[in-house]
Amino acid sequence: MKRYEILAEDIAQAIRSNVLKYGDRLPSVRQTSSSRGVSASTVFQAYYLLEAWGLIRARERSGYYVINSSHHLPPEPEMHVNSSPDSISINVSDLIFNILESVRKREVVPLGSAFPSPMLYPFDKLARSISSSIQHIDPWSTVDDLTPGNSNLRRQIALRYLAEGMHIHTDDIIITNGALDALNLCLFAVARPGDAVIVETPTFYGALQALERMGVKAIEVSTHPREGIDLKALKEALDRHHPKACWLMTNFQNPLGSLMSEAKKRDLVALLTEYDVPLIEDDVYGELYFGTKKPLPAKAFDTNGIVMHCSSFSKSLAPGYRIGWAIPGRYTQSVARQKITSTLSAPIPLQEGLANYLSKGGYDRHLRQLRHRLSVHQTNVMNAIGKYFPKGTLATRPEGGYFLWLELPHQVNTLQLHQQALSLGISIAPGSMFSANQKYSHCLRINYGHPDEKRSEDSLRILGQLCHTQNLTY
Amino acid sequence: MKRYEILAEDIAQAIRSNVLKYGDRLPSVRQTSSSRGVSASTVFQAYYLLEAWGLIRARERSGYYVINSSHHLPPEPEMHVNSSPDSISINVSDLIFNILESVRKREVVPLGSAFPSPMLYPFDKLARSISSSIQHIDPWSTVDDLTPGNSNLRRQIALRYLAEGMHIHTDDIIITNGALDALNLCLFAVARPGDAVIVETPTFYGALQALERMGVKAIEVSTHPREGIDLKALKEALDRHHPKACWLMTNFQNPLGSLMSEAKKRDLVALLTEYDVPLIEDDVYGELYFGTKKPLPAKAFDTNGIVMHCSSFSKSLAPGYRIGWAIPGRYTQSVARQKITSTLSAPIPLQEGLANYLSKGGYDRHLRQLRHRLSVHQTNVMNAIGKYFPKGTLATRPEGGYFLWLELPHQVNTLQLHQQALSLGISIAPGSMFSANQKYSHCLRINYGHPDEKRSEDSLRILGQLCHTQNLTY
Repeated sequence: MKRYEILAEDIAQAIRSNVLKYGDRLPSVRQTSSSRGVSASTVFQAYYLLEAWGLIRARERSGYYVINSSHHLPPEPEMHVNSSPDSISINVSDLIFNILESVRKREVVPLGSAFPSPMLYPFDKLARSISSSIQHIDPWSTVDDLTPGNSNLRRQIALRYLAEGMHIHTDDIIITNGALDALNLCLFAVARPGDAVIVETPTFYGALQALERMGVKAIEVSTHPREGIDLKALKEALDRHHPKACWLMTNFQNPLGSLMSEAKKRDLVALLTEYDVPLIEDDVYGELYFGTKKPLPAKAFDTNGIVMHCSSFSKSLAPGYRIGWAIPGRYTQSVARQKITSTLSAPIPLQEGLANYLSKGGYDRHLRQLRHRLSVHQTNVMNAIGKYFPKGTLATRPEGGYFLWLELPHQVNTLQLHQQALSLGISIAPGSMFSANQKYSHCLRINYGHPDEKRSEDSLRILGQLCHTQNLTY
Repeated sequence: MKRYEILAEDIAQAIRSNVLKYGDRLPSVRQTSSSRGVSASTVFQAYYLLEAWGLIRARERSGYYVINSSHHLPPEPEMHVNSSPDSISINVSDLIFNILESVRKREVVPLGSAFPSPMLYPFDKLARSISSSIQHIDPWSTVDDLTPGNSNLRRQIALRYLAEGMHIHTDDIIITNGALDALNLCLFAVARPGDAVIVETPTFYGALQALERMGVKAIEVSTHPREGIDLKALKEALDRHHPKACWLMTNFQNPLGSLMSEAKKRDLVALLTEYDVPLIEDDVYGELYFGTKKPLPAKAFDTNGIVMHCSSFSKSLAPGYRIGWAIPGRYTQSVARQKITSTLSAPIPLQEGLANYLSKGGYDRHLRQLRHRLSVHQTNVMNAIGKYFPKGTLATRPEGGYFLWLELPHQVNTLQLHQQALSLGISIAPGSMFSANQKYSHCLRINYGHPDEKRSEDSLRILGQLCHTQNLTY
């Protein structure tokens, strides 16, 4: 990262965390140059960058002013307390599928999409890496690289963990067909039909579908919109039920965007170790942090091999490649066997190609750009929500990822809103998708991962109007 | 196919079916030229080809003689009758995994391998097709081409079925991560834990592992080494049990190599339609036929949508790519949803690349070469078995695929043989892998899909000696 980028990042962080507010004047170039000990041209470059991100604007003869801040943003929601949750059978997959299928058309504004814009990813560079690898593919690699997978790719992944201070061995890693595959394999390795598994509430619908598919029950434990699962509630659920696993997203949870602190992750792992309950950790958004440092996963605090860590390149580098991995700790052999009996292996030719891309070192540069674009667009989307949505609307303020969670006034029914918006060419993800008993009927998830989507603000204005109308009508 | 290739194929077929026997003299070039109405040079080219395949040899001033035939081949085994099979819980996965893991080393002669030699496949041409597609990938295809999959690839697959006279619509096809994924998804769509499913005996261990993984019981129905599952036994099992599905390989069954006739497939589908039991049809070896025409799958006779047809490119074109498909008839939506909740989608970049390869038209030429090489090597391996194995050894004589099934004298224990052979650097697939109750302890499966494996004959000689020793010792 260059000097001016570091400076711009620092100032952007100050704006996002509301230290610098809407309308504030930035220190002059001379002041900043002197206080930071950098050249004036470095400060200029940083300010230009902040301007390009839409965070500040120059006024003639007057300096640079903050134009985006959390000043106009809706307040944050509180935790929904789910007291003494039962373990419940799940039957939500049809609802979820109907919604997913309805929002898949390319012409629909993808506020309800699960995917970020594919335009954010370096397809050209990936293509070159794949092409150059595939031309020299050793035919025998199609046998040798079967599960657990290509060793170069596994080494590149291990190296990234090492850079975070985590000691993951190549042999600890199993390459999968995306993180969803990894998560399903981990679930299969530890739970049988009729068992119960702890999830967050609200939770990623893919987890609910996986549990439903396997006939496993869900225990939905209260989760704080900023801080993640409530450890007191988790302990109660562990005492009351005998869950076979705990399936959580520790970093930028889908749909809340919550981020567990390192201390909390440490406590989480200690608690689950005490109860000997494995943690299936879904960490697909960890690379999309807006702060200065990648948040560690819970796996970093796992000394007993109970964390089954899952991640992928689908959100960070290579959408559609369907290459992910599991680091299942003491369950590694079992997960590898699940992989072999279900799909045999991840595709071989893409694995060496991805390893090739990663070894070249452009990944971090791409990630920095990606994070910037997401964080800037989050601010834009938040501002539009503050501007257009009814009073009483609450919104989470995630420090990474590309999802926001909105709580609307209780009169608003987001399943109806979904239908109304869809008829106007806009998708949303209604709250009912994120719970086994279809709570959150006045909530919705907004995808802000489409900064190239020109229609974002218009669509949010229309959505806001629909909410106003529902709010007045009912 | 060129004229000389057709002629060579005809003569090879006559040799394989024992119409032309070991030592027979082929008609002279002049005679054949006249009787076939082709030029002498065409006949010469055909004879050269047959010589290259190792089927005939020229003797000076005397003409061409058959040097390979079924003359020296071991006799074929009879059907093992499994009277009134129970539905049994499966617990064989550990045994199977231990064997599979032990035979994975590259230096082991792969007679026990599940895979044909990767050297038989056109990796260079595939690489060119993938490279040219991936360079022009539309980023949005990574969303649009998610399950059910890339429409160009599905159209290319549909076109191949059309060439066989089958009317499969693009929308009927779901792209999967190989056939094993397709089979597992189909099983998930129709069976729940505790249900029972009919399989062949002996059967593909992957089917047993899939059933075991899901907690589904197996009903093992007698299967003829040449003609496939016994329909009378199947009807009895349908009457006695209430299976949720029937999982069969209709073409070149693994491990027997049996091929159901078209009439039998028609009867099979009629019977299952009468009982309203879906057929999960594993047809991964259909393209590897040695005859003159691709055998139709049972799907061709399905008018009620009860056949869930599964196949892939893994054995015919692109090992390691893990691209297969399901054509699940009336269960299409359910299978697509299983796919989405388990792995979301097959990898996008490989799908367009494979479609690109298929549209160029080199596939059939590759397949003809592949079939020739496999059929020639089958003869070589059969001859070596006839030469080196104990009297009383029986061997199937498949008309396609790359597996032989051997029955040794009852004194021989193939699990022991597996250990002994492995210590000498040779793998086999012992018969116990192919049954839920570990029958077939004197049987084994031999992979003849490694014609480039110089050590084949030596290894078969050593195996034969080990069998002799066991046969005498016990």
